[in-house]
Amino acid sequence: MKTCIFCKIVKEEVPCYKIYEDNDFLGFLDVLPRTKGHSMLIPKKHYRWIYDYPDFGKYWETVLKITKAMQKALSPKLITYLTYGLDVEHAHIHILPRENETKIMPDILSISKQEMQEISDKIKSNTKSSS
Amino acid sequence: MKTCIFCKIVKEEVPCYKIYEDNDFLGFLDVLPRTKGHSMLIPKKHYRWIYDYPDFGKYWETVLKITKAMQKALSPKLITYLTYGLDVEHAHIHILPRENETKIMPDILSISKQEMQEISDKIKSNTKSSS
Repeated sequence: MKTCIFCKIVKEEVPCYKIYEDNDFLGFLDVLPRTKGHSMLIPKKHYRWIYDYPDFGKYWETVLKITKAMQKALSPKLITYLTYGLDVEHAHIHILPRENETKIMPDILSISKQEMQEISDKIKSNTKSSS
Repeated sequence: MKTCIFCKIVKEEVPCYKIYEDNDFLGFLDVLPRTKGHSMLIPKKHYRWIYDYPDFGKYWETVLKITKAMQKALSPKLITYLTYGLDVEHAHIHILPRENETKIMPDILSISKQEMQEISDKIKSNTKSSS
């Protein structure tokens, strides 16, 4: 879709802090991070809801791949998942590595561009080794 | 685990409003519902986190089965998923059929036992036909 921000990220018309990529999916840091490493995984093709994606199991197996990479890269206490989808109308799964945040969706953090780059590089290098 | 409330539900030592059951998973309404039809899907065997479950794709394929049943039974505007897991230490996925709630985790609703039974029966009858 021409006006969809996530489709633009897929086409590299809009930059992102990439953490994962394969033929079907793209993972990147949320630019409004709720935790350090807060990421999203989207199908490259435009679907409205995650349950519209034709291989739901594979979508989540890819989330698991990122989960394992985050565990290696960031050693979080736990990792939580969230789908909502009313903000951007392109299927996306939030993946949040966590320490001691008690809120389901913690307040937005201010993280420098340099640190965002470092975090994404760290996760990305571990998705490669675990795939 | 002897002290785990979800293990007790699996063993039928504690009642639940069941919406789905197969050899590996059990689905039931959350007794503190955030939306009408708010459910949880758990593995029958005790795991700490959902990503500890040995077949993550199958776990989510079963969530999809319930999603489709909820679409037939309740015709919600959308369905969202959430994992958190600090409340009960047995892997569980929250499945929330929604209308116009804007909060990611809306306030707890008061729903009568009769209506909880009706909702669970309605979803359950559709999980049977879609499996």
